[in-house]
Amino acid sequence: MNRLEQQMNFITEIDKLKQIQRQTWLSDGSRHENDAEHSWHIALMAFLLKEYANQETDTTKVMTMLLIHDLVEIEAGDTYAYDSANQKTAHDREAKAADHLFHLLPDDQADMLLSLWKEFEDNQTPEALFAHALDNCQPMLLNHAAQGKGWQEHHVPKSSICRRNEKTGQGSEAIWDYMQDILQKNIDRGTIIDDTIQK
Amino acid sequence: MNRLEQQMNFITEIDKLKQIQRQTWLSDGSRHENDAEHSWHIALMAFLLKEYANQETDTTKVMTMLLIHDLVEIEAGDTYAYDSANQKTAHDREAKAADHLFHLLPDDQADMLLSLWKEFEDNQTPEALFAHALDNCQPMLLNHAAQGKGWQEHHVPKSSICRRNEKTGQGSEAIWDYMQDILQKNIDRGTIIDDTIQK
Repeated sequence: MNRLEQQMNFITEIDKLKQIQRQTWLSDGSRHENDAEHSWHIALMAFLLKEYANQETDTTKVMTMLLIHDLVEIEAGDTYAYDSANQKTAHDREAKAADHLFHLLPDDQADMLLSLWKEFEDNQTPEALFAHALDNCQPMLLNHAAQGKGWQEHHVPKSSICRRNEKTGQGSEAIWDYMQDILQKNIDRGTIIDDTIQK
Repeated sequence: MNRLEQQMNFITEIDKLKQIQRQTWLSDGSRHENDAEHSWHIALMAFLLKEYANQETDTTKVMTMLLIHDLVEIEAGDTYAYDSANQKTAHDREAKAADHLFHLLPDDQADMLLSLWKEFEDNQTPEALFAHALDNCQPMLLNHAAQGKGWQEHHVPKSSICRRNEKTGQGSEAIWDYMQDILQKNIDRGTIIDDTIQK
């Protein structure tokens, strides 16, 4: 198999990302979104919101990182952000999946994507921190537009959202401020439970 | 409304791209794909296949162009590649849609995306030519994987495919060669009609 064939086979294989359903509802609440749609949305957000990254970031790198960050779920499945039992085993399953999946590509590209995916997972560099901020912000926009449907369904409390977003402000203060406004609006309308106030 | 709010509203608005159904079937033939999924796929192809562009291209520009190229269909609807009657009016409808939709963003970003979209439509620059090659190649990969289902359904003949791909070789010789192999394989298995041979 030549190089181009190998790349085209990989491109055909990752079509499966469109079948991985997420917990997030579309903004009109009509159905759940899938990983490919989500990845498209946040890659474009990386371009449109780049001015809000706390540190200088390489936009192409952030976009590419976001286009590939969920590919491992083709083999490892989607793990819901607030499913703490499954979150514990997700990392190992995803690391194995990444190793297998990216190696369908020629070695140089396999190594590059594997390293980019690990950088995203480690969440330390300016690009990874900004990418995570976007990855966390987008479902919040959709959930808010869908009248908080997803949060209500899973009884997600404020403390869980804050824990998940511990580092969001390190990626982008401005985006985290915006998300906190959404959080407060949903507490006010009763679609997110505030479990952080003293009773 | 401040700048970030305006951007976030645009980002929420374009969630509708996930509802624009295309004629192309997913590779497993289970359902049609939508514009957001298609845009994700080809933006990643722009990164993975950049070595095959005929001319030197700015990869970030190609990726961004592909992430936004179908947004106009939120207002103008999808026009099937082989529906020649509707293709004639599509351009005007899409130009109006672009003008309206992109102006939901702050002026500087509206101007930039409008200009990027027009560059794609004009199909003259190295980036636009390469972007079009990918935009045409991806449905071919999916159709081929789905046993030619889409071509058979619409009785698409070889001449229509070649006409649609008149400039694909200008974007990427290598990708057009690969597509011609797929075309031939589908003629051989009877899923594309060869209407170009003398009877």
